[in-house]
Amino acid sequence: MTIDLYYWPSIQGRGEFVRLALEDAGVDYDDVARRPAADGGGVAAIQRYLAGNKPGALPLAPPFVVDGAHVVAQVAAILDHLAPRLGLVPDDAAARTRALQLQLTIADVAAEAHDTHHPIAVSLYYAQQRDEAKRRARHFIDERIPKFLGHFEQVLARSGGAWSLGDDFSYVDLSLFQLMSGLDYAFPRALTAFAPKIPRLRDLHARVAERPRLAAYLASPRRLPWTTHDLFRHYPELDAQP
Amino acid sequence: MTIDLYYWPSIQGRGEFVRLALEDAGVDYDDVARRPAADGGGVAAIQRYLAGNKPGALPLAPPFVVDGAHVVAQVAAILDHLAPRLGLVPDDAAARTRALQLQLTIADVAAEAHDTHHPIAVSLYYAQQRDEAKRRARHFIDERIPKFLGHFEQVLARSGGAWSLGDDFSYVDLSLFQLMSGLDYAFPRALTAFAPKIPRLRDLHARVAERPRLAAYLASPRRLPWTTHDLFRHYPELDAQP
Repeated sequence: MTIDLYYWPSIQGRGEFVRLALEDAGVDYDDVARRPAADGGGVAAIQRYLAGNKPGALPLAPPFVVDGAHVVAQVAAILDHLAPRLGLVPDDAAARTRALQLQLTIADVAAEAHDTHHPIAVSLYYAQQRDEAKRRARHFIDERIPKFLGHFEQVLARSGGAWSLGDDFSYVDLSLFQLMSGLDYAFPRALTAFAPKIPRLRDLHARVAERPRLAAYLASPRRLPWTTHDLFRHYPELDAQP
Repeated sequence: MTIDLYYWPSIQGRGEFVRLALEDAGVDYDDVARRPAADGGGVAAIQRYLAGNKPGALPLAPPFVVDGAHVVAQVAAILDHLAPRLGLVPDDAAARTRALQLQLTIADVAAEAHDTHHPIAVSLYYAQQRDEAKRRARHFIDERIPKFLGHFEQVLARSGGAWSLGDDFSYVDLSLFQLMSGLDYAFPRALTAFAPKIPRLRDLHARVAERPRLAAYLASPRRLPWTTHDLFRHYPELDAQP
């Protein structure tokens, strides 16, 4: 079974949460838009779905996956759909619900991290909202990072196992890895200062990075570098002052 | 089976998406925090869970439901968990995934509507971020409302039935009703101007409001009035100018 992933070809973005699951599971997947346009790839491949020219559920935005007859958009819905087959969630309803709940909170942090550099409008450049971004980023660092990461630290403390759902590794652990990677890139000073408060989360991040298939992926050209065109962005003026 | 809902007792907020499902299904539920504190209710009942003093999954914020041994937070996860039992989603995996995807997009709009009045920080008063709010609201009205509501209009056009998933009524229709209700309250001028572009969505909103149990709920004191302490807020200066 090949899963077709559709996501902007030049950034990690929200698509990376799906890529990590596919890579860690070692399944055959096609990152369609990263193929040349002449080979059916490129952004045009995404646009055909967004324009409604394809059957199945209509995606509003990438990432989405095409899995046989199913078109599934929204990261948390994609992971909920794929994870049982990928072996990345325990196969019972209660565990799947807990995973979904945690993934949605990770998505909330990611959206807030995005809005630190785009607090006014996604249609404007960062430079057109830099003053507001500085204000929002200060609150994000002082209030939201402690709230959210403190929550995940508690979840790990209560899980009863090595991973966020307990003994079973899941896509939630991959997503927590990605969240921490993005925050480390965007806000290195703030994350360094906060690290002593989240030892379990820091340890989880390190252990996920050592998983063989994930380590191979992270070292490969398939893992795109972070840039200031991405969901998480490093602008020194938005990071905490020492 | 009684389901315990925990949500701030004085606003519709995100909890209302869950309340509508419980009310439309006609099930017995306990809106715990709306009971007096002396009777085990009030905000203190919520805080006991947020503080980690209860077993089960740790909620970061309300709404959450306690359903036997399960504690489930995050609106989309709550609805995905409850809907099969409430008869509010078709009983197959593909339909549940489509419902989840749509609910997540509804949640995205709701979060953006919230950020029109709080673009900088939830910890600040509206008056402390009014200038930024005016800027963000203009983009929300001009760009985001057309994008999101246009998407839902297309979803209805493609569904092949009277409701967003086709012939089967689902919690997604209730959530679309709630989204439109909130936007109508917050941005009456903008929504009136945009109405001709979304006839199916306007019609869906009217049809949902006529469902007998929902109509009874909306006319009851259980349906809280909108205020400027809620997720959706009406500030005339943020609404579109005529």
